[in-house]
Amino acid sequence: MKLTKQLTQLAEDSQKASRVLAELLSKKKRKLLNEVAHHLKRSASQVIKANQKDLESAKQMKLTDAMIDRLKLDSKRIEQMAKAVSEVAKLDDPIGKVLKSWRRPNGLRIQKVTVPLGVILIIYESRPNVTSECASLCLKSGNAVLLRGGKEAFHSNQAIVRVYQNVLRRYGIPKASVSLIPTLDRRAIDELLKLEHLINLVIPRGGEALIRRVARHARMPVIKHYHGICHVYIDRDADLKMALKIAFNAKCQRVGVCNAMETLLVHKDVASKFLPPYGQMLRDAGCEIRGDQTTQKWLPGIKKATEEDWRTEYLDKILSIRVVRDIDEAIRHIQTYGSAHTDSIVTRNPKTARKFVSKVDSSSVMVNASTRFSDGNEYGFGAEIGISTDKVHARGPMGLEGLVSYKYVVHGTGQIRT
Amino acid sequence: MKLTKQLTQLAEDSQKASRVLAELLSKKKRKLLNEVAHHLKRSASQVIKANQKDLESAKQMKLTDAMIDRLKLDSKRIEQMAKAVSEVAKLDDPIGKVLKSWRRPNGLRIQKVTVPLGVILIIYESRPNVTSECASLCLKSGNAVLLRGGKEAFHSNQAIVRVYQNVLRRYGIPKASVSLIPTLDRRAIDELLKLEHLINLVIPRGGEALIRRVARHARMPVIKHYHGICHVYIDRDADLKMALKIAFNAKCQRVGVCNAMETLLVHKDVASKFLPPYGQMLRDAGCEIRGDQTTQKWLPGIKKATEEDWRTEYLDKILSIRVVRDIDEAIRHIQTYGSAHTDSIVTRNPKTARKFVSKVDSSSVMVNASTRFSDGNEYGFGAEIGISTDKVHARGPMGLEGLVSYKYVVHGTGQIRT
Repeated sequence: MKLTKQLTQLAEDSQKASRVLAELLSKKKRKLLNEVAHHLKRSASQVIKANQKDLESAKQMKLTDAMIDRLKLDSKRIEQMAKAVSEVAKLDDPIGKVLKSWRRPNGLRIQKVTVPLGVILIIYESRPNVTSECASLCLKSGNAVLLRGGKEAFHSNQAIVRVYQNVLRRYGIPKASVSLIPTLDRRAIDELLKLEHLINLVIPRGGEALIRRVARHARMPVIKHYHGICHVYIDRDADLKMALKIAFNAKCQRVGVCNAMETLLVHKDVASKFLPPYGQMLRDAGCEIRGDQTTQKWLPGIKKATEEDWRTEYLDKILSIRVVRDIDEAIRHIQTYGSAHTDSIVTRNPKTARKFVSKVDSSSVMVNASTRFSDGNEYGFGAEIGISTDKVHARGPMGLEGLVSYKYVVHGTGQIRT
Repeated sequence: MKLTKQLTQLAEDSQKASRVLAELLSKKKRKLLNEVAHHLKRSASQVIKANQKDLESAKQMKLTDAMIDRLKLDSKRIEQMAKAVSEVAKLDDPIGKVLKSWRRPNGLRIQKVTVPLGVILIIYESRPNVTSECASLCLKSGNAVLLRGGKEAFHSNQAIVRVYQNVLRRYGIPKASVSLIPTLDRRAIDELLKLEHLINLVIPRGGEALIRRVARHARMPVIKHYHGICHVYIDRDADLKMALKIAFNAKCQRVGVCNAMETLLVHKDVASKFLPPYGQMLRDAGCEIRGDQTTQKWLPGIKKATEEDWRTEYLDKILSIRVVRDIDEAIRHIQTYGSAHTDSIVTRNPKTARKFVSKVDSSSVMVNASTRFSDGNEYGFGAEIGISTDKVHARGPMGLEGLVSYKYVVHGTGQIRT
């Protein structure tokens, strides 16, 4: 009961703050964010001190080295964090844009104008720089944000939010514009997800279990992606040198990310030429291969890929490979096992490319490029608040445009309906 | 268990059909819809016969006369239904539009292209013409549709869907493109709302209880509006003749619809001049008035408006009136009690109008026009699949544009990420 009341109060304060943010002028938002960047650097020692506390608990919690590395803040990382905020400051203001404007026969003038969403709840894990990324993007788009970071980064997140709130206060803007959920009680998330009248959107970023839990319990809209089972299909008409380069990059450039390839599909006519050198490249990179029967023929000694493999996002140095009869079998495989994130074809045949682009219903569909490019920065959005494999509201990498709604503004001269 | 299996099979068939629909050419969709219109007229007698069955049960179910009237189909209404389908046929194809196209410094060409959502579930009540409206809009936008109409219109809906399916079959398109949920079992809705991997969007249209139930249980996105508590604010600087006309139209032109006014706000400086003639107009129209103390002073004999009145969507010949100190109090009232549907100001002062437009966060905000205009047809969308007071995906009256998503199509020449 006490928790419910505390969180409702917090969200009410966010809603009030969001009304102030909605009316901020572009210039003021830019100045404010530049000042945040400046103060993040100036407050580096306090932030690092708070981070130390988290690092000490991390050792007691027996986090892996990789996790501790992601958690760690030093002056260089804080410098980067501040730089990212300045970059957001420079972006075009997404609010107040007239998307369309038209006049009706009765003289009514109708405008479709972008407005902020209102209050956004972001639930995420570990990396404390996500705190600053999300706060800066929400402020830029005139939204209040409720941040629920991982418990392992609690003190770091507090210190970062404090920097934002201090600047907000100096600008006479409610500090509830950027709030960290003040409790680590796990029930807090369930309580927040009931506040559909106060929170306009939830973005869960993290493991699949967390995201599924949020999607199931949230009464407000959720933007999410469960996972990325990305494919590259090497067509019969592929430039095989290009294919080797793309397939290697898609798998190995960075394995722990959602736009890395998990399954490679190879046309049967090029399997004999493509697979042996590709297998060698992966072995040299320390990447395990699992394949169907035909792949096993060309890459002796590899493990057999099971039905389970086709459905798995390894996020690791493992790749499953399947040899397919034709592009239709490749498309069917993607439809059956894919996650509608990013899929790429390598081919020199424009007709085949068109078929792939038209039939593969993923948020990003690529021709002759590595899946690793599906990313807000790589697309030129300047920033990314998340990625969506849903089809409603935002799809694919989601920049500032994903954080806005619109309203219809209608100007009349006394029109009534007859 | 049997129900789950049956509905999952149905939704799987819809998903398969949606893949065929996604690739249909504009010309074919137009031809197909024109043929549906033609066959609706040709099959009028069968549809009317099915409707008779529903009308007979309606009498046994003791439906009100108004409900029976909404249910009833005759040849004129079927003619209108067919005409509406031809109108949808004529609209621009919303699919395959390149919303944006740009090139990155590394040479990648990125296009943001509209695609259908996939499978849409629409849950609605009584009027059988909604069946045809929704089916035609979904086909036009390349989406498969699952229709769950009210039990009182079951036979009529079956007959209408049969006309669609017959035409689809003749065009070699899966009939699962347009499906009626074949059971009236109430648990069917709960089962369908779990199928997030098969259904991309749910649109509940009907009473608030139904919509709340759908929003709570759906695991996929929901587009909805609970109710419309629309306001008109008569400013100090209003043209009072215009104000009388607009406030009368907003309340009385049609009372049972979501964009009708429920509460009128009047600036204290014009209350004495505005309220007496307005009260007379409403009394002449048989409309009950409830007011705050000041309103009671100017309209003696009316009931006192309670807190409950400010929160009520009457959908009836009842209006609540409040006299406010200034525009800020009017805006606060709307923020507190409104439903973010449609709110209008009557004023000759452009500065006041700007303030209202900026601070009132409703899906439609109007200046000097009746709230009754917030409607897909009045906005020139050619059709309306529903209305949304949410801020995510679609807001306000929702035409074909609300039924599409997009994907990123990326063309490269062998780019990899470094």
